[in-house]
Amino acid sequence: MEMKKIIIIGGSAAGAKAAAKARRLDEFAEITLVQKSPDLSMASCGYPYYVGGLFNDRNQLLCTPAGIVRDPVFFDKAKAIKALVETEVVAIDRHNKQVHCRDLKAGNELTLVYDKLIISTGARPNMPPIPGIDLDGITNLLSMADTDYLRQICDEKKVKQAVVIGGGLIGVETCEALVLSGIKVTVVEALDQVLTFLDWDLAKLVENHMRTKGVEIFTSKGVKAFVGKDGKLSGVQLADNTVINCELAVMAIGVRPNSGLGIAAGLEIGKFGGIAVNQYMQTSDPDIYAAGDCVEIPSRISGEPVFAPMGDMANLEGRVAGENAINGNSVTFPGTYHTGICKIFDFSAGSTGLSIKAAERMGLTDYQTVVNASPDKPGFMGAKLLVSKMLVSTKDQRLLGYQCVGPGDVSKQIATAAMAMLGKLTVEDLVNADLPYAPPFSLAIDHFITSAHIMQNKLKGRMTGISVTEVWDKIQSNEKPFFLDGRSPAEFAEMHLGIGEHLIPLGALRSRLAELPTDKNSEIICFCKISLRGYEAELILRAHGYTNVKVMEGGIMAWPYPRK
Amino acid sequence: MEMKKIIIIGGSAAGAKAAAKARRLDEFAEITLVQKSPDLSMASCGYPYYVGGLFNDRNQLLCTPAGIVRDPVFFDKAKAIKALVETEVVAIDRHNKQVHCRDLKAGNELTLVYDKLIISTGARPNMPPIPGIDLDGITNLLSMADTDYLRQICDEKKVKQAVVIGGGLIGVETCEALVLSGIKVTVVEALDQVLTFLDWDLAKLVENHMRTKGVEIFTSKGVKAFVGKDGKLSGVQLADNTVINCELAVMAIGVRPNSGLGIAAGLEIGKFGGIAVNQYMQTSDPDIYAAGDCVEIPSRISGEPVFAPMGDMANLEGRVAGENAINGNSVTFPGTYHTGICKIFDFSAGSTGLSIKAAERMGLTDYQTVVNASPDKPGFMGAKLLVSKMLVSTKDQRLLGYQCVGPGDVSKQIATAAMAMLGKLTVEDLVNADLPYAPPFSLAIDHFITSAHIMQNKLKGRMTGISVTEVWDKIQSNEKPFFLDGRSPAEFAEMHLGIGEHLIPLGALRSRLAELPTDKNSEIICFCKISLRGYEAELILRAHGYTNVKVMEGGIMAWPYPRK
Repeated sequence: MEMKKIIIIGGSAAGAKAAAKARRLDEFAEITLVQKSPDLSMASCGYPYYVGGLFNDRNQLLCTPAGIVRDPVFFDKAKAIKALVETEVVAIDRHNKQVHCRDLKAGNELTLVYDKLIISTGARPNMPPIPGIDLDGITNLLSMADTDYLRQICDEKKVKQAVVIGGGLIGVETCEALVLSGIKVTVVEALDQVLTFLDWDLAKLVENHMRTKGVEIFTSKGVKAFVGKDGKLSGVQLADNTVINCELAVMAIGVRPNSGLGIAAGLEIGKFGGIAVNQYMQTSDPDIYAAGDCVEIPSRISGEPVFAPMGDMANLEGRVAGENAINGNSVTFPGTYHTGICKIFDFSAGSTGLSIKAAERMGLTDYQTVVNASPDKPGFMGAKLLVSKMLVSTKDQRLLGYQCVGPGDVSKQIATAAMAMLGKLTVEDLVNADLPYAPPFSLAIDHFITSAHIMQNKLKGRMTGISVTEVWDKIQSNEKPFFLDGRSPAEFAEMHLGIGEHLIPLGALRSRLAELPTDKNSEIICFCKISLRGYEAELILRAHGYTNVKVMEGGIMAWPYPRK
Repeated sequence: MEMKKIIIIGGSAAGAKAAAKARRLDEFAEITLVQKSPDLSMASCGYPYYVGGLFNDRNQLLCTPAGIVRDPVFFDKAKAIKALVETEVVAIDRHNKQVHCRDLKAGNELTLVYDKLIISTGARPNMPPIPGIDLDGITNLLSMADTDYLRQICDEKKVKQAVVIGGGLIGVETCEALVLSGIKVTVVEALDQVLTFLDWDLAKLVENHMRTKGVEIFTSKGVKAFVGKDGKLSGVQLADNTVINCELAVMAIGVRPNSGLGIAAGLEIGKFGGIAVNQYMQTSDPDIYAAGDCVEIPSRISGEPVFAPMGDMANLEGRVAGENAINGNSVTFPGTYHTGICKIFDFSAGSTGLSIKAAERMGLTDYQTVVNASPDKPGFMGAKLLVSKMLVSTKDQRLLGYQCVGPGDVSKQIATAAMAMLGKLTVEDLVNADLPYAPPFSLAIDHFITSAHIMQNKLKGRMTGISVTEVWDKIQSNEKPFFLDGRSPAEFAEMHLGIGEHLIPLGALRSRLAELPTDKNSEIICFCKISLRGYEAELILRAHGYTNVKVMEGGIMAWPYPRK
């Protein structure tokens, strides 16, 4: 029997996974992995942590859990996969089912034939033609070469100031790495917030945290030019002509699919420039599969193809592509909920499903949201704060999205929410969920379940919420609602918002109703540290005939504006 | 309008929650909480951590997140709830809708009338009539009084040796607390393992960890008597007459529903002795609700009533009881998946749904299991081990149970599984789940998803698993399968099982097939550190015609027996 010939272009996450899966399913297939760079199967999401000095052994980015570096010898011995590194595929000849390659070291060309081809060429950085972009001192953090360059800069300790352009996942992770190496960092973001998978109010909490670590952040600022002398970067000029002095700039304004080979081969391309694939990860050519950051995959919320360059999805896509390349179309990849998380100093920030912003982009209107701030576990166990936003459909009360930030255990919250999305769970399901409880791990009623409780209270009309941004807008437009802070005098003395609020501790409210506006239709906005007492205040006031009472959701802990 | 009169008996988790919920729904109801002990709304799951000195402010067990102690003044001011502490309910007069109480301090009796009554009297410890059980030095860890007693012992540093009787949740948590206080602890468990929510193989990994902390563990050992002199405990005598010297013994052999008041009042009682309630948390008397450890609730797996004394469930039950007492039956409580977790030194151990043991008890046979051992995140981020067991139905491939132990992030694993259970997710759903990934939090393919991948490989017949206990049994019964350890010589030299295994590194296997048994039908059992290489070895051997190849699931990391 003729052995099946599988060629995989690209040996990072999706490609290496596809190759391994193909081998497991067919011991005798001829599997060849063609990789342009010298390294294989790199843990690219780990680059910032190596740059930041969290670990010093570069090989850890390249090795198996047992400590074996995944080089061509490893692929040959352990997987019987032929890995051609420093070899570039220059063209795909679909008609003859061949790929034309160039050996970048030897300089010679070679041609490989395939029965099935898997394209996993990843993504490449957006590098707009900003004047000065070729100056020495400007880099990305997307390849091992970038990583080595930045690690060397951090080790040398000569660079004092850096600018990170772009406040997305890679931008904030790079920012942290540079700060940990003693570099003063400025983040410049063209949009009005960092981490656009979060809504503005939660992103601002992250920015505030970054500022406590000495990071300077400019949002809504474009970069006009890079300035320098003798070919070396000396500063970044913003659109308003401000110049930020720096010896290093990291471009982190996102990536796009590295789909050039697919385009040149005439494969169908999606609207984000990624290779179009069906549920089998199969391209418009039945003999060619594609996986990873070079493709578009379905959003599991809208059903539309999206560009979602995430390492975990790439691995799962590669697994499906590898299996179908061997067995024919037999397994499917369903797409993404846009689940993501990142660490930013002592904070984590994560999201799954829809933010308000994403819902608006989709034209959704029949949804309800709630912001919840609470510790992640009891105070006596070293509680840390979580601030989250839950979004559900008002039509069927299904969970549509959840985002969470703070120093607390965000990762578990997002995993919980991601599974709830997958199960198409409703608020009714979530309010009595049976999550693991013990004081070292959570509150008796977990933060996630409490979010569902508050959501249910809102949906049942028991609570009327108002967001911190709506409150701020009222203050800016000189509206004068009655602000009721329901905390204790000691808590108030320690810190308060300073928005003209009236301190009436919850325990005294029933006996101090006379201090409230005489017109019972006046707008009253209640809050406390996390707005649990704020909610109880609302219920008391409603019961006493006040008709226009609201709770500022998340309370002071969700307030991203200045406070006293 | 006449105000509704709500009486709640018991002011711990369920009672305090029911009272608070009732108040939020009806500002003007007369709500009275009757509590036998002096404290209210105690964080009883936190007792072991106070005993162990993790924190020193006893009030933290009794206060709100804002630091206010939940005493009768707090309940009065903040909640307008009358809390009668040190007051015992002696009888419920259902005919006249009254409860008869005794003020334990003043000594007088009082009678309260109700429209709706909520019983939340909790659980009481199992205290079998073991000879000597009244000796001084024998306690439980279930009340504030127990907590104060044990904390004082730990602070005094006079007690050198203690025996904890019972290796359940409270037993192991108490054990840890005492060890952290410098006391030498022996755990005596009548069953053949600690933590019976785990299967035996995973529980043994926990026991091994406890031993590394100096704990002595006797399983399958009954206690015959407590021995002492001058009324003071001096030792625990086991059934085999061994005496373990100790000055302190903690009885932790479980609890039973404290349902005496309900029994005396003629309420329907379940087969575990708990008050029977319907989905509204309503007893056989429509005017009486019950919640918390004194009731039986449905198992969400079997549908049968079970006794599940867990703090998180108690809170959720109390919330439902409180709402229905005010609004009439309008919200329901669906029951429990038996989700639980505990910390044991540097390990965590958790479970949701069915273990193999629980499945066997239910008479289930159409299920498949898989053991997975892997780091919780990449090695360069300080990976910690997770060992888990997943159980699915072979009928519809639905997840039926998941248990996990180890130093890694068990809590997130169990929360993920618990939500997957709630969503009735199948293996097909789980293999492409979109969980939050970044190196500080997980592997690119999360441990949970990998478990589903291995499960799918088993279900598709691509992998034949064998458990560590089955392997051990083969060794004990002198069977001689060919054991193939697929690791590197360096790993082998550092540590190996010593069961007559043959070291053939995976990378050399294809060229060393001649070293395998010549009879291709011989039983070959492959493994490695975590059995990923073991799995790849199986695939290679199968492809080369070996017909009886198995993978020892979880590899060396799941091996609870002695090793070299």
